Amino acid sequence: MQALNQLASQGRERVDSQLLKLLETHQGPEPQLQEALAYSLLNGGKRLRPLLVYATGRALGASWEACDAPAMAVELIHAYSLVHDDLPAMDDDDLRRGRPTCHKAFDEATAILVGDALQTLAFQVLATSDQPAALASIQTLAQASGAQGMVGGQMLDLQAEGQQLTLKQLERLHSHKTGALIRAAVRLGGLAGQADTAVLACLDAYADALGLAFQVQDDLLDVTGDTAKLGKNTGADVLHQKATYPGLLGLEAAEQKARDLVDLAKSSLASLPGDWTSLLQLADWCIQRDH
Amino acid sequence: MQALNQLASQGRERVDSQLLKLLETHQGPEPQLQEALAYSLLNGGKRLRPLLVYATGRALGASWEACDAPAMAVELIHAYSLVHDDLPAMDDDDLRRGRPTCHKAFDEATAILVGDALQTLAFQVLATSDQPAALASIQTLAQASGAQGMVGGQMLDLQAEGQQLTLKQLERLHSHKTGALIRAAVRLGGLAGQADTAVLACLDAYADALGLAFQVQDDLLDVTGDTAKLGKNTGADVLHQKATYPGLLGLEAAEQKARDLVDLAKSSLASLPGDWTSLLQLADWCIQRDH
Repeated sequence: MQALNQLASQGRERVDSQLLKLLETHQGPEPQLQEALAYSLLNGGKRLRPLLVYATGRALGASWEACDAPAMAVELIHAYSLVHDDLPAMDDDDLRRGRPTCHKAFDEATAILVGDALQTLAFQVLATSDQPAALASIQTLAQASGAQGMVGGQMLDLQAEGQQLTLKQLERLHSHKTGALIRAAVRLGGLAGQADTAVLACLDAYADALGLAFQVQDDLLDVTGDTAKLGKNTGADVLHQKATYPGLLGLEAAEQKARDLVDLAKSSLASLPGDWTSLLQLADWCIQRDH
Repeated sequence: MQALNQLASQGRERVDSQLLKLLETHQGPEPQLQEALAYSLLNGGKRLRPLLVYATGRALGASWEACDAPAMAVELIHAYSLVHDDLPAMDDDDLRRGRPTCHKAFDEATAILVGDALQTLAFQVLATSDQPAALASIQTLAQASGAQGMVGGQMLDLQAEGQQLTLKQLERLHSHKTGALIRAAVRLGGLAGQADTAVLACLDAYADALGLAFQVQDDLLDVTGDTAKLGKNTGADVLHQKATYPGLLGLEAAEQKARDLVDLAKSSLASLPGDWTSLLQLADWCIQRDH
Protein backbone atom coordinates (compact mmCIF):
# COMPACT_ATOMS: atom_id res chain seq x y z
CA MET A 1 0.00 0.00 0.00
CA GLN A 2 2.91 2.32 -0.67
CA ALA A 3 1.06 4.61 -3.08
CA LEU A 4 -1.86 5.01 -0.66
CA ASN A 5 0.37 5.52 2.36
CA GLN A 6 2.30 8.23 0.60
CA LEU A 7 -0.85 9.98 -0.58
CA ALA A 8 -2.49 9.59 2.83
CA SER A 9 0.45 11.01 4.72
CA GLN A 10 0.84 13.96 2.35
CA GLY A 11 -2.92 14.53 2.06
CA ARG A 12 -3.56 14.44 5.81
CA GLU A 13 -0.74 16.83 6.56
CA ARG A 14 -1.95 19.10 3.81
CA VAL A 15 -5.61 19.21 4.76
CA ASP A 16 -4.82 19.58 8.47
CA SER A 17 -2.52 22.53 7.92
CA GLN A 18 -4.98 24.11 5.49
CA LEU A 19 -7.84 23.70 7.94
CA LEU A 20 -5.77 25.21 10.74
CA LYS A 21 -4.95 28.18 8.53
CA LEU A 22 -8.61 28.48 7.54
CA LEU A 23 -9.74 28.75 11.16
CA GLU A 24 -7.01 31.27 11.91
CA THR A 25 -8.01 33.49 9.01
CA HIS A 26 -11.72 33.24 9.85
CA GLN A 27 -11.64 34.22 13.52
CA GLY A 28 -15.00 35.28 14.89
CA PRO A 29 -15.70 37.60 17.81
CA GLU A 30 -16.17 34.89 20.46
CA PRO A 31 -13.11 32.95 21.71
CA GLN A 32 -14.88 29.86 23.11
CA LEU A 33 -16.54 29.22 19.78
CA GLN A 34 -13.15 29.44 18.06
CA GLU A 35 -11.67 27.00 20.56
CA ALA A 36 -14.56 24.58 20.09
CA LEU A 37 -14.29 24.82 16.30
CA ALA A 38 -10.60 23.89 16.44
CA TYR A 39 -11.31 21.14 18.98
CA SER A 40 -13.92 19.56 16.70
CA LEU A 41 -12.07 19.99 13.44
CA LEU A 42 -8.40 19.36 14.26
CA ASN A 43 -8.62 16.09 16.08
CA GLY A 44 -6.53 13.55 14.24
CA GLY A 45 -9.39 12.11 12.22
CA LYS A 46 -8.78 9.65 9.40
CA ARG A 47 -9.55 12.34 6.79
CA LEU A 48 -11.01 9.67 4.53
CA ARG A 49 -13.07 12.17 2.55
CA PRO A 50 -10.23 14.64 1.87
CA LEU A 51 -8.07 11.69 0.84
CA LEU A 52 -10.74 10.64 -1.64
CA VAL A 53 -10.66 14.16 -3.09
CA TYR A 54 -6.87 14.17 -3.36
CA ALA A 55 -6.60 10.60 -4.68
CA THR A 56 -9.23 11.22 -7.35
CA GLY A 57 -8.03 14.67 -8.34
CA ARG A 58 -4.36 13.64 -8.47
CA ALA A 59 -5.15 10.57 -10.62
CA LEU A 60 -6.79 12.95 -13.08
CA GLY A 61 -3.78 15.25 -13.15
CA ALA A 62 -5.09 18.00 -10.85
CA SER A 63 -2.56 19.86 -8.71
CA TRP A 64 -2.59 19.42 -4.93
CA GLU A 65 -3.56 23.10 -4.68
CA ALA A 66 -6.61 22.60 -6.88
CA CYS A 67 -7.79 19.83 -4.53
CA ASP A 68 -7.27 21.73 -1.26
CA ALA A 69 -10.55 23.66 -1.13
CA PRO A 70 -12.79 20.68 -2.00
CA ALA A 71 -10.79 18.50 0.43
CA MET A 72 -11.38 20.99 3.23
CA ALA A 73 -15.02 21.53 2.31
CA VAL A 74 -15.97 17.87 2.46
CA GLU A 75 -14.16 17.41 5.79
CA LEU A 76 -15.92 20.48 7.20
CA ILE A 77 -19.30 18.97 6.31
CA HIS A 78 -18.26 15.64 7.82
CA ALA A 79 -16.99 17.32 11.00
CA TYR A 80 -20.19 19.36 11.40
CA SER A 81 -22.30 16.22 11.01
CA LEU A 82 -20.32 14.38 13.70
CA VAL A 83 -20.72 17.23 16.19
CA HIS A 84 -24.48 17.36 15.65
CA ASP A 85 -24.91 13.57 15.51
CA ASP A 86 -23.18 13.23 18.89
CA LEU A 87 -25.66 15.58 20.61
CA PRO A 88 -27.87 14.16 23.39
CA ALA A 89 -31.01 14.60 21.27
CA MET A 90 -29.37 12.60 18.49
CA ASP A 91 -26.97 9.69 19.07
CA ASP A 92 -25.94 10.92 22.53
CA ASP A 93 -22.27 9.94 22.32
CA ASP A 94 -19.69 10.94 24.92
CA LEU A 95 -16.57 9.82 23.07
CA ARG A 96 -15.31 10.67 19.61
CA ARG A 97 -11.86 9.76 18.37
CA GLY A 98 -10.77 9.01 21.93
CA ARG A 99 -11.78 12.38 23.35
CA PRO A 100 -14.95 13.84 24.86
CA THR A 101 -17.42 14.89 22.19
CA CYS A 102 -17.85 18.62 21.59
CA HIS A 103 -20.93 19.04 23.78
CA LYS A 104 -19.14 17.18 26.59
CA ALA A 105 -15.93 19.21 26.32
CA PHE A 106 -17.92 22.46 26.00
CA ASP A 107 -21.72 22.47 26.19
CA GLU A 108 -24.71 21.69 24.00
CA ALA A 109 -25.31 25.22 22.80
CA THR A 110 -21.68 25.55 21.75
CA ALA A 111 -21.83 22.21 19.94
CA ILE A 112 -24.94 23.23 17.99
CA LEU A 113 -23.23 26.47 16.93
CA VAL A 114 -19.96 24.70 16.11
CA GLY A 115 -21.79 22.40 13.72
CA ASP A 116 -23.62 25.34 12.17
CA ALA A 117 -20.42 27.34 11.67
CA LEU A 118 -18.50 24.38 10.24
CA GLN A 119 -21.20 23.83 7.66
CA THR A 120 -21.10 27.49 6.63
CA LEU A 121 -17.32 27.35 6.35
CA ALA A 122 -17.55 24.40 3.96
CA PHE A 123 -19.47 26.44 1.43
CA GLN A 124 -17.39 29.54 2.12
CA VAL A 125 -14.11 27.79 1.37
CA LEU A 126 -15.43 26.53 -1.97
CA ALA A 127 -16.95 29.89 -2.91
CA THR A 128 -13.67 31.72 -2.26
CA SER A 129 -11.45 29.06 -3.83
CA ASP A 130 -11.06 30.75 -7.20
CA GLN A 131 -11.57 27.44 -9.02
CA PRO A 132 -13.34 26.97 -12.34
CA ALA A 133 -15.47 24.21 -10.80
CA ALA A 134 -16.41 26.17 -7.65
CA LEU A 135 -20.13 26.45 -8.41
CA ALA A 136 -20.45 22.84 -9.58
CA SER A 137 -18.61 21.75 -6.44
CA ILE A 138 -20.98 23.72 -4.20
CA GLN A 139 -23.95 22.18 -6.01
CA THR A 140 -22.50 18.69 -5.54
CA LEU A 141 -21.71 19.20 -1.87
CA ALA A 142 -25.06 20.78 -1.06
CA GLN A 143 -26.99 18.05 -2.84
CA ALA A 144 -25.03 15.41 -0.91
CA SER A 145 -25.31 16.96 2.52
CA GLY A 146 -28.85 18.31 2.78
CA ALA A 147 -32.28 16.75 3.26
CA GLN A 148 -31.86 14.75 0.06
CA GLY A 149 -28.52 13.38 1.23
CA MET A 150 -26.73 13.10 4.55
CA VAL A 151 -29.29 14.92 6.71
CA GLY A 152 -32.12 12.90 5.18
CA GLY A 153 -30.12 9.77 5.99
CA GLN A 154 -29.57 10.85 9.58
CA MET A 155 -33.32 11.34 9.90
CA LEU A 156 -33.95 7.86 8.44
CA ASP A 157 -31.45 6.56 10.99
CA LEU A 158 -33.21 8.21 13.92
CA GLN A 159 -36.58 6.89 12.76
CA ALA A 160 -35.10 3.42 12.35
CA GLU A 161 -34.00 3.10 15.96
CA GLY A 162 -35.64 0.07 17.51
CA GLN A 163 -37.23 -0.85 14.16
CA GLN A 164 -36.70 -3.99 12.14
CA LEU A 165 -35.24 -2.91 8.79
CA THR A 166 -34.97 -4.92 5.63
CA LEU A 167 -31.61 -5.02 3.86
CA LYS A 168 -33.03 -2.67 1.25
CA GLN A 169 -34.11 -0.13 3.86
CA LEU A 170 -30.71 -0.35 5.56
CA GLU A 171 -28.93 0.32 2.28
CA ARG A 172 -31.20 3.27 1.55
CA LEU A 173 -30.40 4.66 4.98
CA HIS A 174 -26.65 4.33 4.53
CA SER A 175 -26.58 5.51 0.93
CA HIS A 176 -27.98 8.78 2.28
CA LYS A 177 -26.35 9.02 5.69
CA THR A 178 -22.75 8.22 4.76
CA GLY A 179 -22.76 7.23 1.08
CA ALA A 180 -23.84 10.61 -0.29
CA LEU A 181 -20.87 12.48 1.20
CA ILE A 182 -18.36 9.83 0.14
CA ARG A 183 -19.74 10.03 -3.38
CA ALA A 184 -19.47 13.84 -3.19
CA ALA A 185 -15.83 13.60 -2.06
CA VAL A 186 -14.90 11.50 -5.08
CA ARG A 187 -16.94 13.76 -7.36
CA LEU A 188 -15.26 16.89 -6.00
CA GLY A 189 -11.91 15.28 -6.83
CA GLY A 190 -13.30 14.52 -10.28
CA LEU A 191 -14.43 18.11 -10.74
CA ALA A 192 -11.03 19.41 -9.58
CA GLY A 193 -9.49 17.12 -12.21
CA GLN A 194 -11.97 18.31 -14.86
CA ALA A 195 -13.40 14.84 -15.39
CA ASP A 196 -16.01 14.46 -18.13
CA THR A 197 -19.43 12.86 -17.64
CA ALA A 198 -18.30 9.34 -18.54
CA VAL A 199 -15.43 9.45 -16.05
CA LEU A 200 -17.70 10.92 -13.37
CA ALA A 201 -20.10 8.01 -13.87
CA CYS A 202 -17.30 5.48 -13.23
CA LEU A 203 -16.22 7.49 -10.19
CA ASP A 204 -19.79 7.49 -8.87
CA ALA A 205 -19.95 3.71 -9.21
CA TYR A 206 -16.63 3.38 -7.36
CA ALA A 207 -17.79 5.73 -4.60
CA ASP A 208 -21.18 4.08 -4.13
CA ALA A 209 -19.63 0.65 -3.63
CA LEU A 210 -16.86 2.05 -1.44
CA GLY A 211 -19.29 3.98 0.74
CA LEU A 212 -21.38 0.91 1.39
CA ALA A 213 -18.29 -1.23 2.06
CA PHE A 214 -17.12 1.39 4.51
CA GLN A 215 -20.43 1.25 6.36
CA VAL A 216 -20.52 -2.55 6.48
CA GLN A 217 -17.01 -2.45 7.94
CA ASP A 218 -18.09 0.19 10.49
CA ASP A 219 -20.92 -2.10 11.56
CA LEU A 220 -18.47 -5.00 11.80
CA LEU A 221 -16.05 -2.95 13.90
CA ASP A 222 -18.84 -2.06 16.29
CA VAL A 223 -19.15 -5.81 16.96
CA THR A 224 -15.59 -7.08 16.63
CA GLY A 225 -13.53 -3.90 17.14
CA ASP A 226 -11.61 -2.48 20.06
CA THR A 227 -12.79 0.66 21.90
CA ALA A 228 -9.22 1.93 22.38
CA LYS A 229 -8.33 1.60 18.69
CA LEU A 230 -11.68 2.96 17.50
CA GLY A 231 -11.68 5.90 19.89
CA LYS A 232 -15.37 5.29 20.53
CA ASN A 233 -17.37 2.75 22.48
CA THR A 234 -18.09 -0.52 20.72
CA GLY A 235 -21.46 -2.21 21.10
CA ALA A 236 -23.28 1.09 20.62
CA ASP A 237 -25.37 -0.28 17.76
CA VAL A 238 -26.75 -3.10 19.90
CA LEU A 239 -27.32 -0.66 22.77
CA HIS A 240 -29.32 1.67 20.51
CA GLN A 241 -31.04 -1.29 18.81
CA LYS A 242 -29.74 -0.15 15.45
CA ALA A 243 -30.15 -2.27 12.37
CA THR A 244 -26.71 -3.38 11.11
CA TYR A 245 -25.31 -5.61 8.39
CA PRO A 246 -23.95 -8.22 10.81
CA GLY A 247 -27.29 -8.12 12.62
CA LEU A 248 -29.23 -8.72 9.39
CA LEU A 249 -26.84 -11.02 7.56
CA GLY A 250 -24.73 -12.59 10.28
CA LEU A 251 -21.04 -11.88 10.79
CA GLU A 252 -19.62 -14.04 8.01
CA ALA A 253 -22.04 -12.97 5.31
CA ALA A 254 -21.48 -9.32 6.26
CA GLU A 255 -17.73 -9.80 5.89
CA GLN A 256 -18.30 -11.40 2.49
CA LYS A 257 -20.55 -8.52 1.47
CA ALA A 258 -17.83 -6.02 2.38
CA ARG A 259 -15.32 -7.94 0.23
CA ASP A 260 -17.74 -8.10 -2.70
CA LEU A 261 -18.35 -4.37 -2.50
CA VAL A 262 -14.63 -3.65 -2.51
CA ASP A 263 -14.25 -5.82 -5.63
CA LEU A 264 -17.11 -3.91 -7.25
CA ALA A 265 -15.53 -0.57 -6.35
CA LYS A 266 -12.22 -1.58 -7.84
CA SER A 267 -13.72 -2.93 -11.05
CA SER A 268 -15.54 0.39 -11.59
CA LEU A 269 -12.18 2.02 -12.23
CA ALA A 270 -10.90 -0.69 -14.58
CA SER A 271 -11.83 1.09 -17.81
CA LEU A 272 -10.39 4.47 -16.85
CA PRO A 273 -7.06 5.63 -18.26
CA GLY A 274 -4.42 6.77 -15.78
CA ASP A 275 -2.95 5.47 -12.54
CA TRP A 276 -5.66 4.75 -9.97
CA THR A 277 -3.46 2.83 -7.53
CA SER A 278 -4.33 5.05 -4.55
CA LEU A 279 -8.09 4.63 -4.96
CA LEU A 280 -7.69 0.88 -5.52
CA GLN A 281 -5.59 0.53 -2.38
CA LEU A 282 -8.01 2.74 -0.48
CA ALA A 283 -10.81 0.31 -1.31
CA ASP A 284 -8.73 -2.55 0.10
CA TRP A 285 -7.83 -0.56 3.20
CA CYS A 286 -11.48 0.20 3.79
CA ILE A 287 -12.18 -3.37 4.97
CA GLN A 288 -8.73 -4.12 6.44
CA ARG A 289 -8.80 -1.19 8.86
CA ASP A 290 -9.33 -1.70 12.59
CA HIS A 291 -10.48 1.85 13.32
CA MET B 1 -46.30 53.58 2.63
CA GLN B 2 -47.90 52.59 -0.66
CA ALA B 3 -44.63 51.72 -2.42
CA LEU B 4 -43.52 49.54 0.47
CA ASN B 5 -46.90 47.86 0.86
CA GLN B 6 -47.00 46.99 -2.79
CA LEU B 7 -43.46 45.64 -2.79
CA ALA B 8 -44.06 43.77 0.46
CA SER B 9 -47.22 42.11 -0.74
CA GLN B 10 -45.71 41.10 -4.08
CA GLY B 11 -42.36 40.10 -2.50
CA ARG B 12 -43.90 37.98 0.25
CA GLU B 13 -46.19 36.16 -2.14
CA ARG B 14 -43.27 35.60 -4.48
CA VAL B 15 -40.78 34.31 -1.94
CA ASP B 16 -43.38 32.11 -0.24
CA SER B 17 -44.43 30.44 -3.48
CA GLN B 18 -40.79 30.04 -4.52
CA LEU B 19 -39.86 28.49 -1.18
CA LEU B 20 -42.81 26.10 -1.39
CA LYS B 21 -41.71 25.05 -4.86
CA LEU B 22 -38.12 24.69 -3.66
CA LEU B 23 -39.14 22.26 -0.91
CA GLU B 24 -41.30 20.31 -3.33
CA THR B 25 -38.48 19.92 -5.83
CA HIS B 26 -35.95 18.96 -3.12
CA GLN B 27 -37.85 16.16 -1.41
CA GLY B 28 -35.66 13.94 0.72
CA PRO B 29 -36.27 10.29 1.65
CA GLU B 30 -37.83 10.96 5.07
CA PRO B 31 -41.38 12.40 5.26
CA GLN B 32 -41.26 13.80 8.81
CA LEU B 33 -38.20 15.86 7.97
CA GLN B 34 -40.00 17.26 4.92
CA GLU B 35 -43.03 18.13 7.01
CA ALA B 36 -40.86 19.83 9.64
CA LEU B 37 -38.97 21.76 6.97
CA ALA B 38 -42.22 23.13 5.56
CA TYR B 39 -43.54 23.83 9.07
CA SER B 40 -40.47 25.89 9.93
CA LEU B 41 -40.10 27.69 6.63
CA LEU B 42 -43.66 28.43 5.50
CA ASN B 43 -45.08 30.03 8.60
CA GLY B 44 -46.25 33.50 7.68
CA GLY B 45 -43.07 35.27 8.78
CA LYS B 46 -42.48 38.94 8.01
CA ARG B 47 -39.95 38.04 5.31
CA LEU B 48 -38.01 41.19 6.14
CA ARG B 49 -34.78 39.88 4.63
CA PRO B 50 -36.27 38.77 1.32
CA LEU B 51 -38.03 42.12 1.10
CA LEU B 52 -34.68 43.85 1.58
CA VAL B 53 -33.30 41.82 -1.32
CA TYR B 54 -36.25 42.66 -3.57
CA ALA B 55 -36.41 46.35 -2.58
CA THR B 56 -32.68 46.83 -3.17
CA GLY B 57 -32.48 44.79 -6.34
CA ARG B 58 -35.59 46.36 -7.86
CA ALA B 59 -34.35 49.90 -7.09
CA LEU B 60 -31.22 49.03 -9.06
CA GLY B 61 -33.22 47.73 -12.00
CA ALA B 62 -32.90 44.00 -11.38
CA SER B 63 -35.80 41.77 -12.44
CA TRP B 64 -37.93 40.03 -9.81
CA GLU B 65 -36.58 36.73 -11.14
CA ALA B 66 -32.97 37.79 -10.58
CA CYS B 67 -33.82 38.51 -6.92
CA ASP B 68 -35.67 35.26 -6.21
CA ALA B 69 -32.70 33.02 -5.38
CA PRO B 70 -30.96 35.51 -3.06
CA ALA B 71 -34.31 36.32 -1.43
CA MET B 72 -34.90 32.63 -0.72
CA ALA B 73 -31.33 32.03 0.40
CA VAL B 74 -31.32 34.75 3.03
CA GLU B 75 -34.70 33.62 4.38
CA LEU B 76 -33.47 30.01 4.54
CA ILE B 77 -30.50 31.11 6.66
CA HIS B 78 -32.79 33.17 8.87
CA ALA B 79 -35.26 30.29 9.26
CA TYR B 80 -32.48 27.83 10.13
CA SER B 81 -31.12 30.19 12.77
CA LEU B 82 -34.55 30.58 14.40
CA VAL B 83 -35.07 26.82 14.62
CA HIS B 84 -31.67 26.31 16.27
CA ASP B 85 -31.93 29.39 18.50
CA ASP B 86 -35.25 28.13 19.87
CA LEU B 87 -33.74 24.80 21.02
CA PRO B 88 -33.73 24.02 24.76
CA ALA B 89 -29.92 24.25 24.92
CA MET B 90 -30.09 27.71 23.34
CA ASP B 91 -32.91 30.21 24.02
CA ASP B 92 -35.41 27.49 24.95
CA ASP B 93 -38.46 29.08 23.35
CA ASP B 94 -41.82 27.32 23.03
CA LEU B 95 -43.55 29.82 20.78
CA ARG B 96 -42.53 31.28 17.45
CA ARG B 97 -44.85 33.33 15.28
CA GLY B 98 -47.80 32.18 17.36
CA ARG B 99 -47.15 28.48 16.92
CA PRO B 100 -45.13 25.85 18.81
CA THR B 101 -41.45 26.02 17.88
CA CYS B 102 -40.08 23.24 15.68
CA HIS B 103 -38.68 21.12 18.52
CA LYS B 104 -42.04 21.42 20.33
CA ALA B 105 -44.12 20.51 17.29
CA PHE B 106 -41.75 17.67 16.39
CA ASP B 107 -38.74 16.86 18.58
CA GLU B 108 -35.24 18.14 19.26
CA ALA B 109 -33.43 15.82 16.87
CA THR B 110 -35.76 16.81 14.06
CA ALA B 111 -35.28 20.50 14.85
CA ILE B 112 -31.48 20.15 14.75
CA LEU B 113 -31.70 18.43 11.37
CA VAL B 114 -34.26 20.92 10.03
CA GLY B 115 -31.87 23.77 10.79
CA ASP B 116 -28.99 21.90 9.19
CA ALA B 117 -30.97 21.15 6.03
CA LEU B 118 -32.31 24.70 5.72
CA GLN B 119 -28.78 26.07 5.86
CA THR B 120 -27.63 23.67 3.14
CA LEU B 121 -30.58 24.64 0.98
CA ALA B 122 -29.63 28.32 1.23
CA PHE B 123 -26.30 27.69 -0.45
CA GLN B 124 -27.80 25.19 -2.85
CA VAL B 125 -30.40 27.63 -4.14
CA LEU B 126 -27.72 30.24 -4.83
CA ALA B 127 -25.35 27.76 -6.44
CA THR B 128 -28.03 26.51 -8.83
CA SER B 129 -29.49 29.95 -9.58
CA ASP B 130 -27.66 30.52 -12.84
CA GLN B 131 -26.85 34.11 -11.90
CA PRO B 132 -23.68 36.00 -12.74
CA ALA B 133 -23.30 37.00 -9.09
CA ALA B 134 -23.90 33.50 -7.67
CA LEU B 135 -20.39 33.01 -6.27
CA ALA B 136 -20.15 36.53 -4.84
CA SER B 137 -23.58 36.01 -3.27
CA ILE B 138 -22.51 32.74 -1.66
CA GLN B 139 -19.38 34.44 -0.31
CA THR B 140 -21.46 37.28 1.11
CA LEU B 141 -24.02 35.00 2.70
CA ALA B 142 -21.42 32.64 4.19
CA GLN B 143 -19.38 35.48 5.62
CA ALA B 144 -22.52 36.93 7.22
CA SER B 145 -23.89 33.73 8.67
CA GLY B 146 -20.86 31.83 10.04
CA ALA B 147 -18.62 32.20 13.08
CA GLN B 148 -17.59 35.67 11.93
CA GLY B 149 -21.20 36.75 11.59
CA MET B 150 -24.54 35.49 12.87
CA VAL B 151 -23.30 32.34 14.63
CA GLY B 152 -20.52 34.31 16.33
CA GLY B 153 -23.16 36.77 17.47
CA GLN B 154 -25.39 34.03 18.83
CA MET B 155 -22.41 32.74 20.81
CA LEU B 156 -21.76 36.25 22.16
CA ASP B 157 -25.43 36.38 23.11
CA LEU B 158 -25.29 33.09 25.00
CA GLN B 159 -22.15 34.18 26.85
CA ALA B 160 -23.77 37.51 27.71
CA GLU B 161 -26.72 35.98 29.55
CA GLY B 162 -26.79 37.29 33.11
CA GLN B 163 -23.81 39.59 32.38
CA GLN B 164 -23.73 43.37 32.54
CA LEU B 165 -22.90 44.59 29.03
CA THR B 166 -21.75 48.01 27.97
CA LEU B 167 -23.55 49.71 25.11
CA LYS B 168 -20.52 48.97 22.93
CA GLN B 169 -20.61 45.26 23.78
CA LEU B 170 -24.35 45.13 23.10
CA GLU B 171 -23.89 46.73 19.68
CA ARG B 172 -21.06 44.30 18.85
CA LEU B 173 -23.36 41.43 19.79
CA HIS B 174 -26.22 42.64 17.64
CA SER B 175 -24.08 43.69 14.69
CA HIS B 176 -23.08 40.02 14.50
CA LYS B 177 -26.24 38.25 15.63
CA THR B 178 -28.81 40.08 13.53
CA GLY B 179 -26.96 42.91 11.75
CA ALA B 180 -24.72 40.72 9.60
CA LEU B 181 -27.61 38.92 7.90
CA ILE B 182 -29.59 42.12 7.31
CA ARG B 183 -26.49 43.64 5.73
CA ALA B 184 -26.11 40.49 3.61
CA ALA B 185 -29.75 40.74 2.47
CA VAL B 186 -29.25 44.29 1.22
CA ARG B 187 -25.92 43.34 -0.36
CA LEU B 188 -27.46 40.34 -2.13
CA GLY B 189 -30.02 42.72 -3.60
CA GLY B 190 -27.14 44.98 -4.59
CA LEU B 191 -25.31 42.11 -6.26
CA ALA B 192 -28.48 41.04 -8.10
CA GLY B 193 -28.72 44.65 -9.33
CA GLN B 194 -25.04 44.69 -10.31
CA ALA B 195 -24.22 47.55 -7.94
CA ASP B 196 -20.67 48.88 -8.03
CA THR B 197 -18.44 49.27 -4.95
CA ALA B 198 -19.54 52.84 -4.21
CA VAL B 199 -23.23 51.91 -4.27
CA LEU B 200 -22.56 48.81 -2.16
CA ALA B 201 -20.86 51.01 0.46
CA CYS B 202 -23.97 53.23 0.74
CA LEU B 203 -26.15 50.13 0.94
CA ASP B 204 -23.94 48.73 3.72
CA ALA B 205 -24.33 51.97 5.68
CA TYR B 206 -28.10 51.82 5.23
CA ALA B 207 -28.23 48.17 6.29
CA ASP B 208 -26.02 48.63 9.35
CA ALA B 209 -28.20 51.43 10.71
CA LEU B 210 -31.40 49.60 9.80
CA GLY B 211 -30.24 46.37 11.44
CA LEU B 212 -29.46 48.13 14.68
CA ALA B 213 -32.75 50.07 14.60
CA PHE B 214 -34.56 46.80 14.05
CA GLN B 215 -32.89 45.28 17.10
CA VAL B 216 -33.60 48.29 19.33
CA GLN B 217 -37.24 48.04 18.27
CA ASP B 218 -37.24 44.29 19.02
CA ASP B 219 -35.96 45.06 22.50
CA LEU B 220 -38.62 47.73 22.91
CA LEU B 221 -41.37 45.37 21.78
CA ASP B 222 -40.23 42.80 24.32
CA VAL B 223 -41.05 45.42 26.98
CA THR B 224 -44.01 47.28 25.52
CA GLY B 225 -45.38 44.80 22.97
CA ASP B 226 -48.25 42.39 22.94
CA THR B 227 -47.74 38.61 23.03
CA ALA B 228 -50.67 37.97 20.68
CA LYS B 229 -49.44 40.44 18.06
CA LEU B 230 -45.81 39.37 18.38
CA GLY B 231 -46.56 35.67 18.26
CA LYS B 232 -44.01 35.11 21.02
CA ASN B 233 -43.93 35.72 24.74
CA THR B 234 -42.99 39.24 25.84
CA GLY B 235 -40.78 39.77 28.85
CA ALA B 236 -38.38 37.02 27.72
CA ASP B 237 -35.37 39.33 27.83
CA VAL B 238 -35.94 40.19 31.50
CA LEU B 239 -36.59 36.52 32.24
CA HIS B 240 -33.28 35.50 30.66
CA GLN B 241 -31.49 38.52 32.18
CA LYS B 242 -30.51 39.69 28.72
CA ALA B 243 -28.88 43.05 28.16
CA THR B 244 -31.21 45.28 26.09
CA TYR B 245 -31.29 48.85 24.84
CA PRO B 246 -34.22 49.88 27.06
CA GLY B 247 -32.43 48.19 29.96
CA LEU B 248 -29.21 50.09 29.33
CA LEU B 249 -30.59 53.43 28.13
CA GLY B 250 -34.07 53.59 29.56
CA LEU B 251 -37.24 53.40 27.50
CA GLU B 252 -37.30 56.95 26.15
CA ALA B 253 -33.64 57.12 25.19
CA ALA B 254 -33.95 53.73 23.47
CA GLU B 255 -36.90 55.04 21.46
CA GLN B 256 -34.87 58.11 20.51
CA LYS B 257 -31.95 55.91 19.50
CA ALA B 258 -34.20 53.88 17.20
CA ARG B 259 -35.44 57.09 15.53
CA ASP B 260 -31.88 58.39 15.10
CA LEU B 261 -30.79 55.13 13.50
CA VAL B 262 -33.70 55.24 11.07
CA ASP B 263 -32.69 58.79 10.07
CA LEU B 264 -29.13 57.61 9.58
CA ALA B 265 -30.28 54.68 7.44
CA LYS B 266 -32.37 56.95 5.24
CA SER B 267 -29.62 59.53 4.79
CA SER B 268 -27.23 56.79 3.61
CA LEU B 269 -29.33 56.44 0.48
CA ALA B 270 -29.59 60.18 -0.22
CA SER B 271 -26.73 60.34 -2.73
CA LEU B 272 -27.82 57.32 -4.76
CA PRO B 273 -29.53 57.77 -8.12
CA GLY B 274 -32.83 55.96 -8.63
CA ASP B 275 -36.05 55.50 -6.68
CA TRP B 276 -35.37 54.18 -3.17
CA THR B 277 -38.86 54.78 -1.79
CA SER B 278 -39.37 51.17 -0.67
CA LEU B 279 -36.15 51.05 1.36
CA LEU B 280 -36.87 54.48 2.87
CA GLN B 281 -40.36 53.42 3.89
CA LEU B 282 -39.02 50.13 5.18
CA ALA B 283 -36.73 52.06 7.54
CA ASP B 284 -39.73 53.98 8.87
CA TRP B 285 -41.80 50.83 9.22
CA CYS B 286 -39.00 49.21 11.19
CA ILE B 287 -39.74 51.35 14.27
CA GLN B 288 -43.47 51.79 13.72
CA ARG B 289 -44.20 48.05 13.67
CA ASP B 290 -45.89 46.31 16.60
CA HIS B 291 -44.69 42.79 15.73
